[in-house]
Order: sequence, then structure tokens, then C-alpha cells
Amino acid sequence: MGKEKRRRTTAFITFGHHYLYLSLPFMNQPVFSVDRLRNFTLAVFEKIGCPADHALLATTVLMEADIRGIDSHGLARLSGYVRLWEAGRINTKPQITIVHETRSTAVVDGDGGLGLVIAPYAMDVAIEKARQCGSGWVAVRNSNHFGIAAYHAMKALQHDMIGWAMTNASPLVAPTFSVERLLGTNPIAVAIPAGKEQPFVLDMATTTAANGKLEILQRLGKQAPLGWIQTKDGKPSTNPFELKEGGALLPLGSDYEHGSHKGYGLGALVDILSAVLSGANYGPWVPPFVAFLQPPANPVGLGIGHFLGAMRIDAFRPAEEFKQHMDNWLKRFRSAKPIDGQERVLVPGDVESEIARQRRTEGIPMNPVVLEDLQQLAQKLNVPAIR
Amino acid sequence: MGKEKRRRTTAFITFGHHYLYLSLPFMNQPVFSVDRLRNFTLAVFEKIGCPADHALLATTVLMEADIRGIDSHGLARLSGYVRLWEAGRINTKPQITIVHETRSTAVVDGDGGLGLVIAPYAMDVAIEKARQCGSGWVAVRNSNHFGIAAYHAMKALQHDMIGWAMTNASPLVAPTFSVERLLGTNPIAVAIPAGKEQPFVLDMATTTAANGKLEILQRLGKQAPLGWIQTKDGKPSTNPFELKEGGALLPLGSDYEHGSHKGYGLGALVDILSAVLSGANYGPWVPPFVAFLQPPANPVGLGIGHFLGAMRIDAFRPAEEFKQHMDNWLKRFRSAKPIDGQERVLVPGDVESEIARQRRTEGIPMNPVVLEDLQQLAQKLNVPAIR
Repeated sequence: MGKEKRRRTTAFITFGHHYLYLSLPFMNQPVFSVDRLRNFTLAVFEKIGCPADHALLATTVLMEADIRGIDSHGLARLSGYVRLWEAGRINTKPQITIVHETRSTAVVDGDGGLGLVIAPYAMDVAIEKARQCGSGWVAVRNSNHFGIAAYHAMKALQHDMIGWAMTNASPLVAPTFSVERLLGTNPIAVAIPAGKEQPFVLDMATTTAANGKLEILQRLGKQAPLGWIQTKDGKPSTNPFELKEGGALLPLGSDYEHGSHKGYGLGALVDILSAVLSGANYGPWVPPFVAFLQPPANPVGLGIGHFLGAMRIDAFRPAEEFKQHMDNWLKRFRSAKPIDGQERVLVPGDVESEIARQRRTEGIPMNPVVLEDLQQLAQKLNVPAIR
Repeated sequence: MGKEKRRRTTAFITFGHHYLYLSLPFMNQPVFSVDRLRNFTLAVFEKIGCPADHALLATTVLMEADIRGIDSHGLARLSGYVRLWEAGRINTKPQITIVHETRSTAVVDGDGGLGLVIAPYAMDVAIEKARQCGSGWVAVRNSNHFGIAAYHAMKALQHDMIGWAMTNASPLVAPTFSVERLLGTNPIAVAIPAGKEQPFVLDMATTTAANGKLEILQRLGKQAPLGWIQTKDGKPSTNPFELKEGGALLPLGSDYEHGSHKGYGLGALVDILSAVLSGANYGPWVPPFVAFLQPPANPVGLGIGHFLGAMRIDAFRPAEEFKQHMDNWLKRFRSAKPIDGQERVLVPGDVESEIARQRRTEGIPMNPVVLEDLQQLAQKLNVPAIR
């Protein structure tokens, strides 16, 4: 019961050798049940002053990252949220309000609360508007990091709606031809319901590789591929620590010849919808997630921004008809002929849903560094340690 | 007056050496005024049976591609549309109808007409819905190629709205790990209004490089960079003729290590919104643009599909306030410190608006192969040649 399990996590290996390097870091890590980690996380959020319902929601959203295998966005960030709260930069008792709305749109002010709580509130507003008039779009200001975008987009699925979620983030990405870091990894998530098939769930940073992948390479002592990062002078780099030296992540596409201006354009779009439309900080003014860096002295808005949306399927065509065609679409792509050496062709979300199925029953492998960080957090906040 | 001008077109050269290779093909090409080309195009569309208002609209949309420097999507395609009409695959007298709608959504059936005419109609529906309830989203079925996506998205700008346009297209793109071509170059365009600054206009194929760039390399007798195309077995290729051998374009990101699953995910998203939501053909069932290839025998919908949207700025925050911040955003990005050797950092749409400014006054350089094709078209249809 109180004993750690050690096992190899093989979730990725079945998807072909490209995924193998992602599975390596999970090998021989201690594994904990979802329930045990949930109880710990809940205790932490309650301890820093979240009302019970907010603490439960924040826990659910945060843990969904670990469950879906996006380990960089889950418990690995918990102590970061706590440090922001200690620095007075997260309000654990926010009054979340709609500051402006039309029948199909709204702006929500998160009152400086946890994005983990604000974004689900805003997504509920979008879903309700979609129910009423076909679609609903909510721009959010005065928020903080909202966990994985997919969680919010996927809320729409149970309502037979297509869900959208985007957020801006601390500036770590250089636009094409720029040495300056002006954008975050600014993800786009879209979840589309299906019938019998697993749904389509796209959740992508608009960079070639997100920061979490660099952290994996740092722990493994490996170099990054060319095309992920540049030095502070804008030169190609393979050093996974380059960001600490003033370097930058590269937009999806890596360089101009391979379309980095498109990845940059998408990241910029996310920034504008999330923050210029809502009244949050944008571009280089986005406050950093890490508490040891101060927010810019001359903010152009409030907190960070999100953009959430819902579109009712039957506002376009009957939901059953759509789902039959969506199943046909998904089956056709999943059964496409793979390149020699690849096991199969995947649809966005397939890897994550496979991992989630496994982890919900078999538990979540925890990186020892993250685990040690959480145990120190337990001690600091005087909540029971994970065991 | 009737004389061709020959000059070097230098529009791109000022943007740094990366753009230079794009400008090369325009050198020493005959240049024609916008008016002259417009009169010719109008005559062609009228000759194949378009009502006067449709012919004018189709001309305006098609020519906007040449004006903005997207030469692959303009007059270069005119004889392709005519061949589709000859094959009975374009209805030049369509009854465009709304087949289903809610307050913020609609599905439009294009009756097999020109996408150049159907998409503006659908965009007007989206804009009217946005006026009424904040946002409007229109999925289109039973259409054909709609020219450049940016034209449709930019219609929203004059209404202080953000415009969206997407379309699916003939399957030329292989998903990550697939040898099969299942997606088109499926572009995404988003146009965002500004105050005094030039607006933000993203218009991107969801591939690393679109077909038009391969055609340029074919004419120049040059190899493509690695990461644009694969052979019919899914191996890397630099042969710009590879698509004729059964090869495929690669999604934005080029390979899995550089995020091609993201470009594939975006292309898939465009396909689903444009076609599964509207009732058009999707994936490998999308009918080819070229008349010499037959559409698949077992269609899953009607024609090709588009997805268009409009969001009213003041459905989120006062338009003037938004535009001030948007100007601030644009100025900050346009003045970012460039990498050594690059002149400046660009915002999506900057290159195209610069070319448009030049071409509207100085004329449009025509590729000799395209020009010859148009002269033959003139002869075939018995309309006055371009001179």
C-alpha cells in the first residue's frame, strides 16, 4: 500500500521507434496511483487558500497533464504555482467575472486566480453560449497558467461540441529572423467528437519542440536536434540549456526555409486572440511563470490571457451524421499505409489517450527530481508527503 | 500602350536574402497592368457562362492572388478552372443556398459553383451573423477552389472584425509516418484589424512548402531543400517533380522530430472543419483540381469544403482600444532586433502587402509559361488576347 512500485513504462514503444526516446525517461521511475497523487495535490491547493471546489478543480486539471503523459505541465509545476502564490502573484480566492458579452462572445476577468480554475469557468461560458446560439467564444484576461490546453478543449466533447483552447505564455520563442524572445510556446488545442472511434484531440505548442522536451534532454545529458533552439545571437544550437544563456525556442518549422514564419504566425495569432482581444499582457509583456523573475514593470494588460471556444455540431449538421463521417475519417487515417519501419499512422490525441488509459489503471511514473521537489513542498506546507 | 514592359521585380529583395530566391523567378518577365489582366479574366469568366456579377467577383478574387504575389493561385490557375468547367465539374450558374443555420453558424451549399464566388457569399453570411450576435461561422460544401484564403479572411477587416478562412484541397500531403497522400495543402488564413499599422494577415498552407514553390524550382531546374517532400515510399527527397512520381508534400515541421505531427494535425483540422462539418468530401475523397484526374468514384460528400468565420472586435472590447493595443503589438514585433544579416523582423502579411502596393501601381509580372497558356485560352474561347 505505502510501497513504491518500479516498472518500465512502455506506453510509447508500441508506436514505433520515433517515440522510444520519449519513453526512456519513464523507465525505472517510481509509480503512484492517480488517487494518491490527487489527494496530495488537493491538500496543497487547499493549504494555499483555495476554496474546496476550486482546489478540486485545480487538482483535476493539473493531474490530467500527468495522466495524458504531458508530464511537464502537471505535478512538475505544482511547486511553481505555490511560489507564485507566495510572491503574491496568484489570488487563490478570485472573483471570476464576465466583464463584457454578446450572445456568442464574452470577456472573462480571472481576478488574478489560477488559470486551472479560471479556464474551466470560461469554457463553461463558451459552452452555454454555443448551446444557445450555435457557438461561443471567450477571451480571458487576468489569469495564470491553465495547465494543458487539451483539458479545456475536451470539455466540449460530452456536449457534442467542438472545443477550442489557446493561451499565451512567458516569452521564450523568437519570431523568424529575430534574436529577441517575444512569444510563448502558445499552444492550440482543438477537440472534435466522434462516434465509436476515439475523438480527435489536437494539442500542440506552436514551437518545434516545447520546453518540456528540452528538460528531458537536460536530465538525459543529451543534445537537442538542430532546429529546436537558437543562441542569444540567433545562431543554430543543440544545447538544451541554451534558454538559460538567453537563447530562444524556435517556432514550428525551425527556419524560414522550412516554414518557421508559419509557426511564428500561429504563435502570434494565439497571443493576439488570448491577450490583445481580452486585455491581458501580450508578447514580451507576458509575466513569467517562474516566481524568481519579476513581471515587466510596464504591463500592457492584466495577467496572462486565454482564448476558449465551443461550436455545437448540430448547429452545422445532425450530430449523428457528423459522427458517422468523423468515424469514417478517423478510420481512414488510422489505417493509412505506414512508412517502412513505422507501425502505424496516428491521429492527434492517440498517443495521449493510450497513455491515459494505461496510467489511470496502472498509475503515474514520477520523475525522481519532481518527486523530491514535491516532498519538500509537503514539508514546507505541512501536508502529508506522497508515499 | 499595347507594349510589354520588361523589368526586374525587386519587391522581395529588401526583406533580406532569404526572400531573394522568391524574387528570382520574376526577373525579366513581361509586366502587365492590373486593369489589362482584369479585363481579360472578366471576359473569360463571362465566356464560360458566369453571370456578370459572378464573373466580376471571381475576377477580383483570382487576381488578388497575383496582386499579393501568390502567383500560383491567380491567373496561373485560370485555364484550370476552364478545363473543370469543360469537364462539367464547375457550375457557372450556381444557386448558392443556406441549408442550415443558427444565430451564429450556417452551412452553405455552393451548388458546384466556383469557390471564388461561393466563399465571398459565405463570408458575407458570417459577417452578418457576427454583426448580429458577436461571431459567425460558416461551413461550405459543394464548392471548388476558392483562390487565396487571405482574400476571404480580409473581407472582415473593413467591418472591424477578425476574419477566418480555411479550405480543404486535393490530397497531396502525407500525414506523419504515412506513405499515402490523405490531405491537401489545407490553408489557414486569419486577418486581424489594426489602427494606423498595416493589419496582421496570416495566410499559410499547413505544409512546409506549398506546391507553388515546387513549381518555381521546377522552372529554375533546382532541387528542393530536404524536408519539403517524400518519395512514394516515404523516403526523403529533393526532387521537385516527386509528386508526379507518387511522392507527397510534407506537413509543416517536415519530420516527426521537428513537429510534422503538428502540421499534419493542423491540416487535418482544416479538413474536418471544412468538409466533415459541412458535408463536403474530405481526406482522400477530395476531388482533384486538375480536370485530367477523375474525382473518386465513391464520394463521401459534395464537392470540396471551406470554413469561414468572423468575430466582431467590439464583441470583446471597444474597437478603438483593441486597435491601439494591436498597433502596439505590431510595432513591437516589427521593431524587434533582427539576427545579423537579416534586415528586419516581419509580421504575417507584410511581404504580401508590400508586393500588392507595388503591383497595383507598377503592374504584375507574368511568367512566360503562364502567359502562353492564357493566350491559348484566349484563342480557344475566342476572347481578345492579353497585349
